[in-house]
Amino acid sequence: MFFVFDGIDGAGKSTQIARFVRWLQAAGRTVVECRDPGGTELGERIRDLLLVPSSLPIASRAETLLYMASRAQLVTETIAPALAAGKTVVSDRFVSANVAYQSFGSGMPLEDLLAVADFAVGTTVPDLIFVLDLDVETAATRVGSTPDRIEARGSDYFRRFRDGFLALESIWPGRVVTIDARADADEVHRRVVAAAERYLHASTAETDRSAPRR
Amino acid sequence: MFFVFDGIDGAGKSTQIARFVRWLQAAGRTVVECRDPGGTELGERIRDLLLVPSSLPIASRAETLLYMASRAQLVTETIAPALAAGKTVVSDRFVSANVAYQSFGSGMPLEDLLAVADFAVGTTVPDLIFVLDLDVETAATRVGSTPDRIEARGSDYFRRFRDGFLALESIWPGRVVTIDARADADEVHRRVVAAAERYLHASTAETDRSAPRR
Repeated sequence: MFFVFDGIDGAGKSTQIARFVRWLQAAGRTVVECRDPGGTELGERIRDLLLVPSSLPIASRAETLLYMASRAQLVTETIAPALAAGKTVVSDRFVSANVAYQSFGSGMPLEDLLAVADFAVGTTVPDLIFVLDLDVETAATRVGSTPDRIEARGSDYFRRFRDGFLALESIWPGRVVTIDARADADEVHRRVVAAAERYLHASTAETDRSAPRR
Repeated sequence: MFFVFDGIDGAGKSTQIARFVRWLQAAGRTVVECRDPGGTELGERIRDLLLVPSSLPIASRAETLLYMASRAQLVTETIAPALAAGKTVVSDRFVSANVAYQSFGSGMPLEDLLAVADFAVGTTVPDLIFVLDLDVETAATRVGSTPDRIEARGSDYFRRFRDGFLALESIWPGRVVTIDARADADEVHRRVVAAAERYLHASTAETDRSAPRR
């Protein structure tokens, strides 16, 4: 099982990932946590290029390709081996973040971006993506004043990529669970768990149906 | 005009690039030289990740995406603006090197690699690619003993990517000039110049034919 949490900074990803991981572990699962970009030695070096505020010019296609390079390494080195070993993977962001930020936020054609994502991750796609949805103003209040390269582009950009997060359900039908992140952390956690239980139950039923008859 | 030199290390790229650039300048052209990977601040940081021998694990798709990220930056920051300003660009390697090393050498599906290259460079493709062809043994003798990440993979790999360089003419018909690099440097230079003159003459004729009638 491969779960992703995504959404604007300030929506509560870190808190919800920690609680969901504890819930999975309490249910007897071995969990591998990772973050994207990053999560490997190469990925963290790439993350430093992408997210540390600096004067380093990065063209939009180079930026996308760096995210994808980090992700290809993460899939090969961490996610795919963990899934093959029967572990459960929980990632802080994945391709969904590029769809929201680079495509909806910055105008990269979606089809082009998804083609490169397909090259980078192949068949290693999330079972469920939890999108923690939050309006720009509340997110900004929660985050305070720590702009980085991405977060310093003005409110129009914020609104466009929020629309991107809300469009994910139509891009990957059945794999995206959008949750209102204005609710308190307990309520958001309950909704995450409810969606995960529905998905796990459906997967189990599917496995039972496809089991060989005696 | 956008020219690329490619071929195995030891084939004489640096020497031939220097002589060709002087020839272009003597013909009144303003020349911008670059190298791929590298050539920009971001690109040189990526080049350090790719080519400096280290224990850093790099998955094959991550490697390809890093080359493409460096190249996207080089195209956006250097090559496309130079061409738009009427300058002549001469690059030490380009997509052709990934075709030879990653696809023919290491088994990356060619179609996948060319799709990502298309994302990275768009319409900024070379007018002519000079492939300096040399057998593995002669190249190894010329280079001496300075293996890096790429050059330390054994002779089978060398033979496969030489086949890759020789396949470029069929991948980009009319854009690839393969030159036997066993010839001395003067002879190789004469062949480079002859091919460039043929190409420039044909381009001029083409421009004349498409000029509006009075």
